[in-house]
Amino acid sequence: MSFNSFGLLFRVTTFGESHGPAIGGVIDGCPPGIRFKLEDVQGALDRRRPGQSRFTTQRREPDEVRILSGTLEEADGVLVSTGTPIAFLIENVDQRSKDYAAISESYRPGHADYAYDVKYGLRDHRGGGRSSARETAVRVAAGAIAAKVLPGVTITGALVQMGEIAIDRNNWDDAEIGRNPFFCPDAKAAERMADYLDGIRKSGSSVGAVIEVVAEGVPPGLGAPIYGKLDADLASALMSINAVKGVEIGEGFASAALTGENNADEMRMGNDGRPVFLANHAGGILGGISTGQPVVTRFAVKPTSSILTPRRTVTRHGEDAEIVTKGRHDPCVGIRAVPVGEAMVACVLADHFLRHRGQVGTPPAWPFPR
Amino acid sequence: MSFNSFGLLFRVTTFGESHGPAIGGVIDGCPPGIRFKLEDVQGALDRRRPGQSRFTTQRREPDEVRILSGTLEEADGVLVSTGTPIAFLIENVDQRSKDYAAISESYRPGHADYAYDVKYGLRDHRGGGRSSARETAVRVAAGAIAAKVLPGVTITGALVQMGEIAIDRNNWDDAEIGRNPFFCPDAKAAERMADYLDGIRKSGSSVGAVIEVVAEGVPPGLGAPIYGKLDADLASALMSINAVKGVEIGEGFASAALTGENNADEMRMGNDGRPVFLANHAGGILGGISTGQPVVTRFAVKPTSSILTPRRTVTRHGEDAEIVTKGRHDPCVGIRAVPVGEAMVACVLADHFLRHRGQVGTPPAWPFPR
Amino acid sequence: MSFNSFGLLFRVTTFGESHGPAIGGVIDGCPPGIRFKLEDVQGALDRRRPGQSRFTTQRREPDEVRILSGTLEEADGVLVSTGTPIAFLIENVDQRSKDYAAISESYRPGHADYAYDVKYGLRDHRGGGRSSARETAVRVAAGAIAAKVLPGVTITGALVQMGEIAIDRNNWDDAEIGRNPFFCPDAKAAERMADYLDGIRKSGSSVGAVIEVVAEGVPPGLGAPIYGKLDADLASALMSINAVKGVEIGEGFASAALTGENNADEMRMGNDGRPVFLANHAGGILGGISTGQPVVTRFAVKPTSSILTPRRTVTRHGEDAEIVTKGRHDPCVGIRAVPVGEAMVACVLADHFLRHRGQVGTPPAWPFPR
Amino acid sequence: MSFNSFGLLFRVTTFGESHGPAIGGVIDGCPPGIRFKLEDVQGALDRRRPGQSRFTTQRREPDEVRILSGTLEEADGVLVSTGTPIAFLIENVDQRSKDYAAISESYRPGHADYAYDVKYGLRDHRGGGRSSARETAVRVAAGAIAAKVLPGVTITGALVQMGEIAIDRNNWDDAEIGRNPFFCPDAKAAERMADYLDGIRKSGSSVGAVIEVVAEGVPPGLGAPIYGKLDADLASALMSINAVKGVEIGEGFASAALTGENNADEMRMGNDGRPVFLANHAGGILGGISTGQPVVTRFAVKPTSSILTPRRTVTRHGEDAEIVTKGRHDPCVGIRAVPVGEAMVACVLADHFLRHRGQVGTPPAWPFPR
Repeated sequence: MSFNSFGLLFRVTTFGESHGPAIGGVIDGCPPGIRFKLEDVQGALDRRRPGQSRFTTQRREPDEVRILSGTLEEADGVLVSTGTPIAFLIENVDQRSKDYAAISESYRPGHADYAYDVKYGLRDHRGGGRSSARETAVRVAAGAIAAKVLPGVTITGALVQMGEIAIDRNNWDDAEIGRNPFFCPDAKAAERMADYLDGIRKSGSSVGAVIEVVAEGVPPGLGAPIYGKLDADLASALMSINAVKGVEIGEGFASAALTGENNADEMRMGNDGRPVFLANHAGGILGGISTGQPVVTRFAVKPTSSILTPRRTVTRHGEDAEIVTKGRHDPCVGIRAVPVGEAMVACVLADHFLRHRGQVGTPPAWPFPR
Repeated sequence: MSFNSFGLLFRVTTFGESHGPAIGGVIDGCPPGIRFKLEDVQGALDRRRPGQSRFTTQRREPDEVRILSGTLEEADGVLVSTGTPIAFLIENVDQRSKDYAAISESYRPGHADYAYDVKYGLRDHRGGGRSSARETAVRVAAGAIAAKVLPGVTITGALVQMGEIAIDRNNWDDAEIGRNPFFCPDAKAAERMADYLDGIRKSGSSVGAVIEVVAEGVPPGLGAPIYGKLDADLASALMSINAVKGVEIGEGFASAALTGENNADEMRMGNDGRPVFLANHAGGILGGISTGQPVVTRFAVKPTSSILTPRRTVTRHGEDAEIVTKGRHDPCVGIRAVPVGEAMVACVLADHFLRHRGQVGTPPAWPFPR
Repeated sequence: MSFNSFGLLFRVTTFGESHGPAIGGVIDGCPPGIRFKLEDVQGALDRRRPGQSRFTTQRREPDEVRILSGTLEEADGVLVSTGTPIAFLIENVDQRSKDYAAISESYRPGHADYAYDVKYGLRDHRGGGRSSARETAVRVAAGAIAAKVLPGVTITGALVQMGEIAIDRNNWDDAEIGRNPFFCPDAKAAERMADYLDGIRKSGSSVGAVIEVVAEGVPPGLGAPIYGKLDADLASALMSINAVKGVEIGEGFASAALTGENNADEMRMGNDGRPVFLANHAGGILGGISTGQPVVTRFAVKPTSSILTPRRTVTRHGEDAEIVTKGRHDPCVGIRAVPVGEAMVACVLADHFLRHRGQVGTPPAWPFPR
Repeated sequence: MSFNSFGLLFRVTTFGESHGPAIGGVIDGCPPGIRFKLEDVQGALDRRRPGQSRFTTQRREPDEVRILSGTLEEADGVLVSTGTPIAFLIENVDQRSKDYAAISESYRPGHADYAYDVKYGLRDHRGGGRSSARETAVRVAAGAIAAKVLPGVTITGALVQMGEIAIDRNNWDDAEIGRNPFFCPDAKAAERMADYLDGIRKSGSSVGAVIEVVAEGVPPGLGAPIYGKLDADLASALMSINAVKGVEIGEGFASAALTGENNADEMRMGNDGRPVFLANHAGGILGGISTGQPVVTRFAVKPTSSILTPRRTVTRHGEDAEIVTKGRHDPCVGIRAVPVGEAMVACVLADHFLRHRGQVGTPPAWPFPR
C-alpha cells in the first residue's frame, strides 16, 4: 500500500477532494473479459449516496459515475473489461464551500484538519478536502467492479451497533438489512436506533457504530504468509476507511478470553468430500489464508467530529479558540460506512484471488483431499 | 505489502521455517549512518526468546543473531549502517521434528496447517513450518534496528489482558513490565495471571491475551492519506502477527459507543507554542496522520491451537480423526507477542518517518504555528 | 513498476485509450508546496501535440488539460500542490474510428494489435486503443509537474538521428532545437531531414529515429543500488515509450569497444572545492548513482508499423491476409517522442530525488569533501 | 523496483558485500511444487565463478550455495518449493582486503566509489563493497530457480563483441558457446579474442563487450501495458547489471535507420494453426507483450575501471591524486556477465509468467485463433 493506491494485482488508485471539481479512481490490473453494466456501479454508489434519509448528511450529490477507459461496450449496455486501466469519474455538484469559512482557521478536535496542516504546511479545508468521507464513493465504485471478479462470492455488510445500541444476534435477518435506513439486520434494534439517532441529530451531536461484513462463498487458499495475509490486508483496508478505529476478524477481541479448546474450529469430513468446520471462531482465515468458511470482519467507526456543541481548540495561528461545525454532516457516519466496508472487502478478495492464481497457477478451489 | 516483505522505504523481508536450517531477514532502505551494537539486536531477541520461564515453550533456542551485510564496524563494536541491505541470520538449533509426526497427517483445528495444504498442495509440517511463531524472532531483530532510525521515540508494549484476567489501569506501572514474566504493568494482576496460567499449562490448555503498545515521542505528520495511513499500516503490521484477531487504535471499539462530544480531543495552546491535547481518544492519529500525541495500539491474540485435549479433525487423506498436539508450546502466546508488537510498531514508524521525509523534505516535526 | 503506474514516491498512473472518451493520469506522492501554472502543463503538451507541422499526424487534438485534484489556487493562476493526488484529464476530441475498420480484423505487422489479442482475448482496436502513442500525452503532463519538483535541473531532448540521417555533433546548437519541426540541434541536418521525411511521408512509409535527452544540474547522489539504480529506472522509463527498441546511458554501446583507460572519467579538484570530471563517458551515472555530471540518455525509436504499402498478415480468424493502414499517422514517431523522453527523464529524476531525501535525510547535494 | 529487490510476483531480494561475511538472496513468490536440485543452482553459479581461466579475476571463490528455506527435500536430492520464501547464502571465502588499502582514500575514475561516498557519506570500500560484481552471483542463483518456473523456455547468452572484435553471425554455432572461455558462439572470433584479451590483460588494461541473450519458447502474452511492458522490465533488469551502459531489444538502435516496410515482421498462418512471423525485427515483443517469437536482448558492458595505468583522481579529503588499482580483476567483465544476463532474463520472464497468470487466469499460451 502506498499513499493513494491499494492492492497489488487488483490495484485501485483514488483521487479528488470533497469540494474540488471531481473525485475518481483508476482500477489497474482488472482481468480482461469481466462483464458488468454501468448500473452495477451506479447502484452501488446509490446505496452509499448521501441525502437518502434524514439520518445522513443533507448534501445532495447525484454521484453519477462516468467510465473513461478500460472497457468495450457490447450489446444492451454490457461493458466488458479489456485488461487495461478502468478509470471512472464522479463530478462534484453540491459544494457549499461558504459553510466552511469558520473551519479554515480553527481545527475541529478529532478531525484530520490539524494533522494535514502540521504535515503538509497547507490543506484544502473545504469540506475536509481529501480527508472527507466523500472519497469513499470511489471505493464503492471500485468495489462494485471487484465483486464481478469474484465468482460465487456474496458480500454482506450490516450495522451491528450504533452508539450504545447493539443488535440481538438472535434477531438477525439478512432481508431486514435493506429495509431500514441503517443497514441493520435486527428490525427491533433498527426501531430503537431511529429514535436514538433522531435525538443525536437534533442535538447536533454524533455517534459511533460497529459494522460487520461477511463474505460467503470465498474459496479456500486466498491470502499468503507472512505479510500478505488476507486478514492483514483486510485490516489495512478497513482501517483506511474514514473514522475507523478498530478491526476484528472472527472472534476478534473476544478470542483473548477463550481457551484453546473453546476457540478450536473442529473439523469433520462432509458428504461432498470436503471438510466441514463445526464452528467459525477463526472468521474464515487461518494463518492468513482463507479456509473456505465465511470470512467475517468487523470494524468500529468513531463519531464524527463535526458537531454543534462548542469545543475548545486552537487556530492555525496558534491561538486558543472555540469551534462549532455548522456544515451538513452525518450524525452517524457508520451508516454509510456499511457499503464502503463491503467494497473494501470485495477489493481485497479480488486482489488475493488474482494473487493466488498468479502464484499457484489455478484458481483457489477445493481439490481436497489432493 | 507483498507476501514476505513489509514497509515501503524501510522494507523488511523475512524467510525461514521453524525447523529449517535458519530463519533470517533483510532490511532494505535503512538510512546510512545509523549506529547500533549487536547487543541491541541480541537484547531485543532475548526478550522474546522461548524457554525463559515456565510460562513459555520449553524449546531452547539461543536465537543468536549474525549480521551478514550492510554495516561497517567502528571502534568498540559499534556498527554503522552503510545504506545497503542489512541481512541477518538466526540458525535453528533445537529442532525436535519427531514431536511432529502426528500432525503431519492430521490438521490441528484452528491452526494454519489445513490452510497451507489447501492453498499450496503441500506444506512443511515440522513445527508449523513457515506459519510458526518462530518467524517473529526476525521481526524483533528488525524492530531493534528500526528503533534506532527513530530519534526520540520510545515504544513500550504491555500485556493488558490474559484470558479472563484484565489489568486495573489504576495500577499501571511501567517499571513493573520488566519485573514479571508476562510484561504486565499491573503487579497484582501479574500475580493472578501466574496462578491462572499455571492451571492452563498443567491442563495442557492455552489462553488468549490482549497487548497494548504505546509509542511516545512520535513526531506529528507521520502517515499519509488515503491508503498509506499510519493506522492502516499499523493495523496490517499487527494483524500479520501470528494468532492476532483484532487491532485497535486509541479508543478502538469503545469509540462506537461514544458521542462526538465525548470523543473529541480538545486542544489548547501550550507554553512552548505547541498545541496541547486535553485527551487522547484518537490514539495519536487523525486522518491517518500522527498528531504528536502518544500512538496507542492494542491487539488481541487468540489461544494457540496446540493443546493436549483431543479435538476432532480430518486427515490430509480426507478421513475423520482426532488429534492431540504433544510438542512444546506456549500456554499463552500473547506473552511473547509483546516484544513482537513493539517491533512491528517500530518498523511501521521508521518506514513512515522515511516516507514523510521523502515527500515533504523535512523530518516530521513541530514548526507550529507555521 | 506495475502495469500502468511508474515511480515509487513520485508515482504516475495513466489511463485511457486512443478513441475512448478521455485519457488522463494521477500523480501520487507529489510534495506539498510545489507551485506551477496550468500553462506550464499545457505548454508541455503543446510541444507534443499532433498536427503542428506536415511531418506529424494530422489528427487534430487540442489536448486541453484539466486538473481535477491535488492543488489549491493562489493568486494569478498559480496552483500549489497540497500533497494529495494530482489528477488530470484530457478529453479525446478528434476520433475518426471509421478509419480503423480494416484493422479490426487483421493485424498490422510490427504493431501491438496481435499481442493484445493473444494476451487478453480481445482488444480495443480503434486507433490502437491503449497501445496508441496518444497515451504519451499523459506522460508529458506528468513530466511538466515533475520538472517543478527538481530545483535547478534542466532537461533537454533532441533528435540526433532520423532514418539514415545523423546529426554532426560539431553543429550542435541548443537554440536550434526549437527552430525546426524535428527538435534537431543541427540546422543543416534538419534541412536534410525535411527533404528526406517529405519523401517518406509522400510514399506512405515511415522511418525510425534516435533521441538524446540530457539532464543538467542533476545533483549527485540520486539513484540507489542495486535494483533501484538511476540508470535502470531510466532504461525502464524510456523503453516503456511506444516503439522504443534501445536505450543507452553515456557512451552506451560504444563503451564496449573502449579500454579502461579511455573510458575512465578522470577527476581533479575544482576551484569551488568540488571535483571536476575531465570527461563524461559514464553519462553522469556510476554504480547506478548520479555523480553531478550531466545525465546523458539516448533511445532508439523504430518506424511506425502504420504504412500504406501492403504487408502480409493474418486475421483474427486465422486466415492469411494483406493489410494497408490508412489512418492518419506520423511518418516519424521519433519526432514527437522528444518531449515524451524529456518527460520520462523528469519523472524518474523527481522520483529519485524524493527517494534519496527519504533514505538519506537531506536533499542530494555536494557536501564534498565531507 | 525498489532498492535491492526486483520483480513483482517472482520477487528477488539480494544482499551482501564483496568482502563481508556472505552474500545471498531471497526469492519471494515462487510457485509451490517447483522441483530442482541443488546442483542446478550450483551449476549455474559455477559458470559465472571467477578464476576458471586466465581471462577472469584470479580471486578464488568456491561460491558454494546453501539453501536456507522454502523447500522440502524429496528422494534423490530433489528439492520441491513450498511457496514460501527461498533464501540462499554464499559465504565469502577469499577476501584479500589488504589489496584495497589504496582505494580507501582515492576514487577510481569510472567506478562507483565516488558515487557511494557522495550519496551516503560513507562506503564499504573493500572490493567495491555492495557495488562489486560479486553481487551478481546471487542473481545467477535466483535465475537458476526462475528457469524452473518457465516450462519449455530455453535461455542462451553469448558474447557477440569484445572490445573491437565482433563475431561474424554467419559463424554462429550454439554448441561453440560452451567450448571457449568467452561464451562466444563464433569459434574463429573466439581465437582472436584470446590473443586480444591476453594483450589487454598483460598490459593491466580492460575492455568492454556486448552480450546477446535469446529466450526461445517464450509463450505469447507475457508483459503488460504500459509500465509493466516486458521490454521495459528487461531493460531495467539488464541495465541493473554492473557496468552495463546500453540495452537493446530485437533490432535495437539499428531500427532507427529502417523504414516501416523493412521493419515489419510479416505474418502467415502456419500449418499448426498458429501464425508464423517471417522476420523478428521486434525481438519477440510488440507493445510490451511477447508474441511467441524468440525474445532477443542485447546489452553493452563497459570496461572495468580497475586498471594498472595510473589515472588522475581526487581523494575523499578533496585533494588531487593519482590512482592505480592493484587488486585481482577481470580484464573483460563482459565474459562473466553472460550467465548474469541469462539469469536476469529468466527472472523477468518468470515474473511476467506469474503476472499474466494472475491477471488473465490461464497460463500464457496459443489459443489462436480464438
